[in-house]
Amino acid sequence: MRIELNQAIEMLNSHDNILILAHRNPDGDALGSGYALCRALRSVGKNAEFKYFDKIPKVFLELEACCENTDFEPSFVVAVDCADSKILGDFPDGRYKEKVDLCIDHHSSNTLYAKYTYLDDNAAATSEIILDIARAIGAEIDTLTAQAIYIGLSTDTGCFRYSNTTSKTMRMAADMMDAGINAGKLNRILFETKSKSYAALEAMALATLTKHFSEKCAIMHITLEMHEKSGTDETEIHALASLPRQIEDVLVGATIKEAEPGRYKVSIRTNPPVNASEICQIFGGGGHKRAAGCEIHGTLSEVKKQLLDAIEPFVRDVDPE
Amino acid sequence: MRIELNQAIEMLNSHDNILILAHRNPDGDALGSGYALCRALRSVGKNAEFKYFDKIPKVFLELEACCENTDFEPSFVVAVDCADSKILGDFPDGRYKEKVDLCIDHHSSNTLYAKYTYLDDNAAATSEIILDIARAIGAEIDTLTAQAIYIGLSTDTGCFRYSNTTSKTMRMAADMMDAGINAGKLNRILFETKSKSYAALEAMALATLTKHFSEKCAIMHITLEMHEKSGTDETEIHALASLPRQIEDVLVGATIKEAEPGRYKVSIRTNPPVNASEICQIFGGGGHKRAAGCEIHGTLSEVKKQLLDAIEPFVRDVDPE
Repeated sequence: MRIELNQAIEMLNSHDNILILAHRNPDGDALGSGYALCRALRSVGKNAEFKYFDKIPKVFLELEACCENTDFEPSFVVAVDCADSKILGDFPDGRYKEKVDLCIDHHSSNTLYAKYTYLDDNAAATSEIILDIARAIGAEIDTLTAQAIYIGLSTDTGCFRYSNTTSKTMRMAADMMDAGINAGKLNRILFETKSKSYAALEAMALATLTKHFSEKCAIMHITLEMHEKSGTDETEIHALASLPRQIEDVLVGATIKEAEPGRYKVSIRTNPPVNASEICQIFGGGGHKRAAGCEIHGTLSEVKKQLLDAIEPFVRDVDPE
Repeated sequence: MRIELNQAIEMLNSHDNILILAHRNPDGDALGSGYALCRALRSVGKNAEFKYFDKIPKVFLELEACCENTDFEPSFVVAVDCADSKILGDFPDGRYKEKVDLCIDHHSSNTLYAKYTYLDDNAAATSEIILDIARAIGAEIDTLTAQAIYIGLSTDTGCFRYSNTTSKTMRMAADMMDAGINAGKLNRILFETKSKSYAALEAMALATLTKHFSEKCAIMHITLEMHEKSGTDETEIHALASLPRQIEDVLVGATIKEAEPGRYKVSIRTNPPVNASEICQIFGGGGHKRAAGCEIHGTLSEVKKQLLDAIEPFVRDVDPE
């Protein structure tokens, strides 16, 4: 059931012993939202804990210091930045999959799996919503909380580049900077540093790039072998997905990543007017208008063919906006 | 002579027929500052004109529509974003080289060549100062003026990534977004699009990259031949300079570009604590702490050796901040 922001705030105010979960393989916004909400709730005297069970990118490890583990029996479960119970970063026994009390999210593809959902798909990042909530419950926004929020805002907007960035996003980031974070250093780590292994994988992936449909689609792939050869961490691959879309005239950039033999994870990035989420929904995936993902099974060439067949109608006779 | 901001505002208020110049080969901030100041002055009823005499990057051509040429005899000459009269984008006859009345700039290396200089090296971009001035003189900030300011703010901060970005920069950008600009589209054009020729040159340049001094310095070069082979426009090369610095552990990234046989333009980009401007000053150049430039004469290998000799003391026994 969808609820209003003030109802979500009221729920958080009236509960204690709050467990926070995010989506699996949490990114900057999932981690930023989770940690910021946890710190905000603790700062007003509640028991709160943010938990995730996957390996996270090295660049986010610093965030782990921002909420020590505590011990309490959760009585209210919140999912942040998680659009579907299928991708909930749940305990290994799946105990909360169907038992999320409140979901706070900005993905328009949210399946409303939680008992109550506050969804604002105009928010550039779930962290935007969390900051509004933190302020409304009178939480202290100290430097570590501000850093978590800033990481959420910046990572979901490509550091304020993408078209989801609003003036509200910019002002919130400004407020976080005034709270004492070192934004220049964070940006350097998050956006301006390539590990040597990443640089190697980038070169290999770009060498596989092909263009289709009057150069309006660019597609590249990453095999398990390339992954191993470069020595990249699983979590470092995410950034590659934005590269095919950067080439002049490209409306749809696709990156096919071998997850295991016969199973491929596909990242789609688009330029207006093409809707990435609509393409990924064909394969049971989803996401945002400009960035979405799905899984396709088959051999690499089968996957590539299926994907190109799906993309063609989205770019044929379509001009960039 | 250095003056305060209110004195600069007073000067602009009390003059008419104002000619605005910027530095040669104007970048986004020079063009943004020039056009925004011109439009601001015109909006309060003054004759004003912004002039430059070099070819500008394609991505900025849209700005040209924002100030039509007018015809008047200038009685007050303002230079924006220009640190030295040697690089003033003057008329071909050099008529204003020693006759700049007011310089408005944010480069700490400003030589104070103008009669009066308002210098704020805490400003991320000269466009920040221009927006303060435009507001103070009661100028209308319409969408085209806002776009010029936004281009200045975003290009001088790597789209709000670099450490010169402040909360003031972010709030100003937010205000410009509220004035109706399409920031997502501008960012896509300015930061997320690689022309096919640029992509080719990038690959060639990266192939020349070498590392030195325990990988704390990365250096690459672009020859006239590579330039020609890729079909890149002279003005497209600028963006390459940020690449060497992006590699893990690199404190000084240098790009050597052949301007003509025997003459090389060098761009230095640094990570803290290394000061790029100090390195470039050794060769008579200058700029900012994190981004600076200079010229060196000789063969490519001589230039590279001179440069490495100059860089070594800046990285030897120095750790990243």
